[in-house]
Amino acid sequence: MTDRSQLLSALADVVGGRYVLTSNEDVAPYATDWKRSSTGVPACVVRPASTSEVAGVVRHCRELGFTIVPQGGNSGLAAGAIPDSSAGQVVLSLNRMRAIRSLDPVGMTIEVEAGAILQTVRENASEVGRMLPIAIAAEGSATIGGVIATNAGGLNVLRYGMTRDLTLGLEVVLADGSVASGLRHLRKDNAGYDWKQWFIGSEGTLGIVTAAVMRLVTVPRHSVTTLLSVTNLDAAISLFELTQQDIGEALSAFELISAQSIDLIERYAQLKSPIAAGEWFILLEATSSLSGLRDAAEAVLAAGFEIGWVVDGVVAESDMQARQIWALREHVTEAEARRGSSLKHDISVPLTRMGAFLADAEAALETVAPGAGLNLFGHLGDGNLHYNVLLEPDHDQQAINRVVHDVVVKHGGSISAEHGLGQYRVDEWLRVAPDADLRLASTLKTALDPDGLLNPGKILPSKLSHSKAIGETI
Amino acid sequence: MTDRSQLLSALADVVGGRYVLTSNEDVAPYATDWKRSSTGVPACVVRPASTSEVAGVVRHCRELGFTIVPQGGNSGLAAGAIPDSSAGQVVLSLNRMRAIRSLDPVGMTIEVEAGAILQTVRENASEVGRMLPIAIAAEGSATIGGVIATNAGGLNVLRYGMTRDLTLGLEVVLADGSVASGLRHLRKDNAGYDWKQWFIGSEGTLGIVTAAVMRLVTVPRHSVTTLLSVTNLDAAISLFELTQQDIGEALSAFELISAQSIDLIERYAQLKSPIAAGEWFILLEATSSLSGLRDAAEAVLAAGFEIGWVVDGVVAESDMQARQIWALREHVTEAEARRGSSLKHDISVPLTRMGAFLADAEAALETVAPGAGLNLFGHLGDGNLHYNVLLEPDHDQQAINRVVHDVVVKHGGSISAEHGLGQYRVDEWLRVAPDADLRLASTLKTALDPDGLLNPGKILPSKLSHSKAIGETI
Repeated sequence: MTDRSQLLSALADVVGGRYVLTSNEDVAPYATDWKRSSTGVPACVVRPASTSEVAGVVRHCRELGFTIVPQGGNSGLAAGAIPDSSAGQVVLSLNRMRAIRSLDPVGMTIEVEAGAILQTVRENASEVGRMLPIAIAAEGSATIGGVIATNAGGLNVLRYGMTRDLTLGLEVVLADGSVASGLRHLRKDNAGYDWKQWFIGSEGTLGIVTAAVMRLVTVPRHSVTTLLSVTNLDAAISLFELTQQDIGEALSAFELISAQSIDLIERYAQLKSPIAAGEWFILLEATSSLSGLRDAAEAVLAAGFEIGWVVDGVVAESDMQARQIWALREHVTEAEARRGSSLKHDISVPLTRMGAFLADAEAALETVAPGAGLNLFGHLGDGNLHYNVLLEPDHDQQAINRVVHDVVVKHGGSISAEHGLGQYRVDEWLRVAPDADLRLASTLKTALDPDGLLNPGKILPSKLSHSKAIGETI
Repeated sequence: MTDRSQLLSALADVVGGRYVLTSNEDVAPYATDWKRSSTGVPACVVRPASTSEVAGVVRHCRELGFTIVPQGGNSGLAAGAIPDSSAGQVVLSLNRMRAIRSLDPVGMTIEVEAGAILQTVRENASEVGRMLPIAIAAEGSATIGGVIATNAGGLNVLRYGMTRDLTLGLEVVLADGSVASGLRHLRKDNAGYDWKQWFIGSEGTLGIVTAAVMRLVTVPRHSVTTLLSVTNLDAAISLFELTQQDIGEALSAFELISAQSIDLIERYAQLKSPIAAGEWFILLEATSSLSGLRDAAEAVLAAGFEIGWVVDGVVAESDMQARQIWALREHVTEAEARRGSSLKHDISVPLTRMGAFLADAEAALETVAPGAGLNLFGHLGDGNLHYNVLLEPDHDQQAINRVVHDVVVKHGGSISAEHGLGQYRVDEWLRVAPDADLRLASTLKTALDPDGLLNPGKILPSKLSHSKAIGETI
């Protein structure tokens, strides 16, 4: 019996034969990312139904020398859940583990299995008047395990934080096949090291998240949604500062969209901006349990007009108008894709460096891709910009990546603000990360997964090349 | 030359002779905790002035076989910064590293050295209209390094989270004497493992925090402070739920104080409650940038009266009245100390288990300390209760600890919600912690500090007994 047939037989014993997928047709949806920019060839896809089945799969893979690529909804943007082409990796899909285990509206927690779809979890919370405030475009396919593994950001980070801030407890299958159970429903727990933090955002390289307890919040009663255009970036930042002061904790989104992005949307997504253009557009949303929100928001806008920051603006008068405003923001990526290929950067810099970053990045880009079009949008309140370069056939993608990331580093930023490193950004991270980051990452990886069983090649290079790369870099 | 004289000489070369303290008088303030319940005998106290001096101290201690106890403001409640009595530990005080390195009111960050006093940092932020929302009684002596090392909680956790949620970047000296620099001023950074999380709350056992970047928030314009008495715990929880719904994100404190605690305060702290007693008192504070706050708060109270949850209540009409209300809460610990000795428990349970926890704990306590008085107060909104037993001479402290903690575990709680394990709760944690917690803690400790140089005996038992204890437990 070959190693692979031994594996298939062992896994079938654990999960049942029909949940070990091997045909090209069955495997295809798990082997290619949703952007169709990365495809691998797995040994098989295995779909366990329980934590103990996950542990069983891990033990057999370890024994037979196959590595494991954990996968949730396969909606990631960095191909972190896609196997390589060696046929030596097993895709471990959590998509049969979808149970909502408990929902506590008073303690405001929900305990779910890793494969539960984000939207389903949000709907369950919503039915009891609570909210899981993780708002990402892929909510219909992304899983809780996936958003935890990537520490997903999204549209509400300004107010509610990243996924990390909303995760209270985890159950994780470790590389040795043991189960670490920490499904606590506590807001405060300082007993020993808070090990769940190690796994959040680790992209399946340190352990496999099988269940989680998430923190819920109450649903605010009032909301206000506005679309504005502003003269320039300084005006946008000044307006953000004023909004923070006058609307404070009620501010839930302060999205930045460039005029070029709105052009793209109007040309490729058949939508129309309802207001006159400035250099930038801002989508501002605030929600509160308190009345007085709309008055405060209108006062901020009036001040913005008077000072000259704001060119034009509209306040949504209905839910439908609010949805129309959001539709513009939500079609930015689609419009970009319809235009042609592009090179995405998911960067963050301190808010006060954003202007200098943009100027320096444009100058640097001019040296490697003169006249390149840009699609710039993001979460200004978080200092997070999606700096997407519209590619032309003669562009050198690696050169573009390098100059953009060099400018990010120069301004104290991150080359991966919310999408994770996956496999796309591993080389760039190795190139620009401080030695200490690489050394500490390697230390934890070695401590928790000494044989490199879990998602090799993601975040850090896979085992063999890894030792070399770390050795060279440090 | 003895090892110790070699050490003193080497450390003097690094920091200057006057910053190596050896006389009993000089050493005393560093060798005893502020509660005067734990005293150690250090080899010496060393006070470096810079990160590179800290690194030099670490290297010399390692070389000469001395272990290190990092210390901030020495205001901890679990003796986590106090050396043992072996004269083999060096207290490394960060109290000369107090610089405020930068303050960015727009990006809302502050970068400070570890020894900066919390109150000083808060005052610096306040001068530019910003706030570092860590509110603890010891703010006048606690340092930023200390609040990070213990992941301090306090009075504003409900709204702003624990210290972890407010920490954006860290600089840490590792056990090998190298410096890991991650002083990022970013809200979002998913590039690689977020290693700062490992050190937050690790009580100096994994590395020595030498500087940090903290997140600031805007100062709310409006506030309302009320003191209420309620019929029973269920009424308190129902009122909390209503408050979450109607005041939502503006709620910043929902403190619970038992009627017995108010009795203690009236007898031992010469303060008087302005309202009639119920079974419990609640101190509710909400702050917002929006108007409408006071109306919302008064509506909640009116509803609470009408339903019969609330016995009596007062809304502060001035800052002075608000301070008087807070004075009651702030004197709970002092009144307890003036009465006599007590045994403190810093526990958390899910909010919905609080009632069952209290009933079970009382019954369990009756078996080991019949009729014992209690001082119960805490942060109801966080499920965090300070369950303090008023000691009588015949009480068996270990037996009391055990029965209380057993009930905590039964209800899915934590035996250390916000104060940390320090040295006081190590044995109890080893007794009740799940195997996975101990195994993972041991794994990280071994990976980052294989020789047990940093704060041995805190969180985990010191190196030798440690291996044994872990071996026995798992």
